[in-house]
Amino acid sequence: MKRSTTQILARLRELMLRAQPGDSGCIAAYIVPSDDAHQSEYQCQHDERRSFVSGFDGSAGTAVVTTDSALLWTDGRYYQQAEKQLDSNWVLMKDGLTTTPSIGAWLAKNLPRGSSVGVDPRLLSFRVWKPIETELNAAECQLVPIERNLIDEVWGADQPAQTSNPIITLKLEHSGVTIAKKWEVVRKQLKDKNVDALVVSALDEIAWFLNLRGSDIDFNPVFFAYLIVTSDELLLCVDSSKLPSDFAQHQTENNVRITILPYASIGLEISKIVSTKESKIWIAPTSSYYLTALIPKSRRFQEVTPVCVLKAIKNDVEIEGFVNSHIRDGVALCQYFAWLEDQVKRGVQVDEMSGSDKLESFRASKDKYMGLSFTTISASGPNGSVIHYHPKEETNRKINDTEIYLCDSGAQYLDGTTDVTRTLHFGEPTDFQREAYTRVLKGQLSFGSTVFPAKVKGQVLDTLARKALWDVGLDYGHGTGHGVGHFLNVHEGPMGVGIRLMPDDPGLQANMFISNEPGFYQDGEFGIRVEDIVQIVPAAHVAHNFANRGALTFKTITMCPKQTKMIKKELLSEVEVKLLNSYHQQVWETLSPILSREGDEFTLAWLKKEVQPI
Amino acid sequence: MKRSTTQILARLRELMLRAQPGDSGCIAAYIVPSDDAHQSEYQCQHDERRSFVSGFDGSAGTAVVTTDSALLWTDGRYYQQAEKQLDSNWVLMKDGLTTTPSIGAWLAKNLPRGSSVGVDPRLLSFRVWKPIETELNAAECQLVPIERNLIDEVWGADQPAQTSNPIITLKLEHSGVTIAKKWEVVRKQLKDKNVDALVVSALDEIAWFLNLRGSDIDFNPVFFAYLIVTSDELLLCVDSSKLPSDFAQHQTENNVRITILPYASIGLEISKIVSTKESKIWIAPTSSYYLTALIPKSRRFQEVTPVCVLKAIKNDVEIEGFVNSHIRDGVALCQYFAWLEDQVKRGVQVDEMSGSDKLESFRASKDKYMGLSFTTISASGPNGSVIHYHPKEETNRKINDTEIYLCDSGAQYLDGTTDVTRTLHFGEPTDFQREAYTRVLKGQLSFGSTVFPAKVKGQVLDTLARKALWDVGLDYGHGTGHGVGHFLNVHEGPMGVGIRLMPDDPGLQANMFISNEPGFYQDGEFGIRVEDIVQIVPAAHVAHNFANRGALTFKTITMCPKQTKMIKKELLSEVEVKLLNSYHQQVWETLSPILSREGDEFTLAWLKKEVQPI
Repeated sequence: MKRSTTQILARLRELMLRAQPGDSGCIAAYIVPSDDAHQSEYQCQHDERRSFVSGFDGSAGTAVVTTDSALLWTDGRYYQQAEKQLDSNWVLMKDGLTTTPSIGAWLAKNLPRGSSVGVDPRLLSFRVWKPIETELNAAECQLVPIERNLIDEVWGADQPAQTSNPIITLKLEHSGVTIAKKWEVVRKQLKDKNVDALVVSALDEIAWFLNLRGSDIDFNPVFFAYLIVTSDELLLCVDSSKLPSDFAQHQTENNVRITILPYASIGLEISKIVSTKESKIWIAPTSSYYLTALIPKSRRFQEVTPVCVLKAIKNDVEIEGFVNSHIRDGVALCQYFAWLEDQVKRGVQVDEMSGSDKLESFRASKDKYMGLSFTTISASGPNGSVIHYHPKEETNRKINDTEIYLCDSGAQYLDGTTDVTRTLHFGEPTDFQREAYTRVLKGQLSFGSTVFPAKVKGQVLDTLARKALWDVGLDYGHGTGHGVGHFLNVHEGPMGVGIRLMPDDPGLQANMFISNEPGFYQDGEFGIRVEDIVQIVPAAHVAHNFANRGALTFKTITMCPKQTKMIKKELLSEVEVKLLNSYHQQVWETLSPILSREGDEFTLAWLKKEVQPI
Repeated sequence: MKRSTTQILARLRELMLRAQPGDSGCIAAYIVPSDDAHQSEYQCQHDERRSFVSGFDGSAGTAVVTTDSALLWTDGRYYQQAEKQLDSNWVLMKDGLTTTPSIGAWLAKNLPRGSSVGVDPRLLSFRVWKPIETELNAAECQLVPIERNLIDEVWGADQPAQTSNPIITLKLEHSGVTIAKKWEVVRKQLKDKNVDALVVSALDEIAWFLNLRGSDIDFNPVFFAYLIVTSDELLLCVDSSKLPSDFAQHQTENNVRITILPYASIGLEISKIVSTKESKIWIAPTSSYYLTALIPKSRRFQEVTPVCVLKAIKNDVEIEGFVNSHIRDGVALCQYFAWLEDQVKRGVQVDEMSGSDKLESFRASKDKYMGLSFTTISASGPNGSVIHYHPKEETNRKINDTEIYLCDSGAQYLDGTTDVTRTLHFGEPTDFQREAYTRVLKGQLSFGSTVFPAKVKGQVLDTLARKALWDVGLDYGHGTGHGVGHFLNVHEGPMGVGIRLMPDDPGLQANMFISNEPGFYQDGEFGIRVEDIVQIVPAAHVAHNFANRGALTFKTITMCPKQTKMIKKELLSEVEVKLLNSYHQQVWETLSPILSREGDEFTLAWLKKEVQPI
């Protein structure tokens, strides 16, 4: 399972000796982040440099190589995996423990004064760069941008090329708003903030703004590009060969003209704007240090982009698509769970991998299906307690009637993106499992039905989802909710619900969509998570309106029953019982006509059983 | 009500022309913060410079004077008061509105490039200084420390002197732990963080660490001083004439020798340490820019001080004193409310001011009484909706049987500090008033009984106190809880419970004491607040322990009934009814023997009526 990194590190250290031009070209340490140049959450293989250098392939982590050490920082989700994958050249730095120093603090303490630490400035966001730089400077060291990527040089011919798949256009019937209209809103904000240009490097923002979609990163319908928006120009830096054949028509339908420039020319274009314009230039603090540094400090306007916020507040067509895609997705889920229960009961062997394939096949049969939105977490028994688990040959377990089965999955549809978790037991759950499930469900019902003032940060609602678990000293180690893209990334900002504040959260607003997913994990035994997607809507039923601030609440759009066998009814309040029963009735009323129409009596019978009021 | 500031501003602007040495000594703007040199929440009259220059005497606000403008930033609590008090020279900048620029942003936008903005560097914390400086620098302006205080020069002979009242020693029977023992803990932390010295400028930290108390600031038993702690020295910069006569004995009893230096020598002492030692020097980010800047950047260790955190976690003697002082305080409160109800019922005129005097006299009769801990908020009807109200001649209202009466008060005792709010109606409250009161109470019960994992930030519990109000679209515009000192400041950090994170919150830990005070305010009509002090204690009764992280909960130590007449019982859950009844039973069991012993049958009868189970 461990891959030797000895040779890779030796070659990297050689390059570190002459990483900078000039005589004193040596760097004492090289940082290998897991970001790509767009600070995407997931990367294409070309960008999996940290995984290449360290052998650790989890989704989060940063490698640091000095002349005599190699260290990998990663968080609690990945301690186990990293320990398995890192060879003896590497030291695991457990991020999140109070005893673990930050990267900057470790380097500041362990490098001699005057040392230079190198990093590819495209692969670190400005927000991450800054505190490392500050800590290094305090120790009289410096963080220096190394424009050539040393890992790419070590990797050489074996490094996969950056993907460049064809782009598709998203028609107005699915996007809902023309590019021209989106531009109008952005243009007004540029004017209000006295800004000349907006640089957009986040791939989902570019895709959303331009009503285009791609497939350069698995599960994420985005394409590699940069976008510059001014009051009179849209400059798109992209490999023109991947543009769709109907791109001219797309521009006409969207009432815009887009200037196409080479992908690699983004730096040049920013520099041009810096020298030809006079006001500030808007760039998100999450954009790379490289792009940010091209703009003189006094000209930078560093806030979350208006595109990011607009994208999070869905328009009417996106909302309709979201609701509809969740109904189709719900049908597929019911078909899968009905099938699975039957297989397990009949003793037919199904394992995590074959189960997740079956679920994928049900989804693939649905209208507007475009693929999965992430690797399915199909987890039986102890595997369910690994929060970011997905089955591999060596971990694959049978799905049976003695262990809890946790299934967290989602799909991309032309009209929406889904993300849903259900936890089921096909035999007899223990009393503790039922209690934990019921408390998770209580949290979900409490969160999902809460009324709150418009524009509170998502963070302030987090505790509501934990309270019922906290009452007995239980908790879960992840956030409660994340934004979801519209036929886009399954995780999107800028808002979110967790213990920690999302730094760019503009406050919760009507027609944002987020997940509602409390859980509970008993290490090595089982995992429980119940996840719905909820739409933020006005709370029309309440007597007061927060002194005109506006009262909001959630509407659940995920359509799939929650296993009532797992519930200890005596732990639910009357209100909670009502909420659950009315949700199940809604699921029945929504899905049963479709199953009837499709003649799927088998799933219909299962659904009828699952939605019985408690 | 308005005082003309025309002459003051004219003289200040003259001084601004030659504020700095040299030819280009002019500053384009002068900032007048409300801080004193110790960043105290409340100031002595000598330090009320912002109030002197602007005429606005609220507790929070910052004045900025340019050559042709004068602006005052203050927050929502004080918009009305500032509008009343500022004369036509001043523009009110409503802090907290999204449309109001920060001080730095306003200056950056309105001053010509190259301008200097001056401020007394003693009166701005490093934490506040930094962002203003950053914004000014981005606009090619600068923030410059002006060592002479221009307001003091304008104020001249009329400025009250800095208070310098006698210091008293706090015996071990009240402090619980010797200075030597406290020093031992701090010394270990200095070593762990590889720090040579700790600079303490917060007055309550100094008083607590040295088991001394003063009276230099009204209601706050502190004295002006600075403290430097190293592994082998305690340097106290203080006016030696105010030291107590038993100071030598105090040192002996506390197993320490304290070096006394002149108050004004703190800068010199810091510089000495900088030049004689080599490691870092610990100073809180809340200490002044002046003190911080004496330490070279690379030598600064800027975190909340260990004294601040230690002080918040009360020792056994402090805990016992806290509990006992709250019992005595509870007796005084009951005596007052019993008396007040009787007066109002018999039609005897009592107003907000005479009421609060009466309450003070009851408190003053109690053992170990040392004074009030803040100006009593004695507020009838609409005055209760002004969150930081305290009665003055021109606002004084009769306490009657048609309006709600809100009383937020507290006292200093040798063994503890109290802060308690009760809201009462002596006639017939409206249905809406009862609903609002009940929802406030529900929030208080929910918060006060919650179980939570050790070391969560106080912020994550805030929503629990609001939930019952949110359910119907109501809310309150202040935090839910603040720390309380032990015979010290009634507001103390570093933890706190509110919508926003307290930046230095080390997480909630056993034996911290905080307030639990949700409220509701109907502008111009009434205010409701119910406030107890709660102790953080282990939640021994719960089944699990957050995977060994530790389960905590609260124990209410305030002893005073909550008016049941205001409650709509149908809005309470069974659990809530039980919590309230059992609290009232505890109040009865705690206070009735004392009232009996004192022969106060009158108050006893009132108490018996008030604690009847609902």
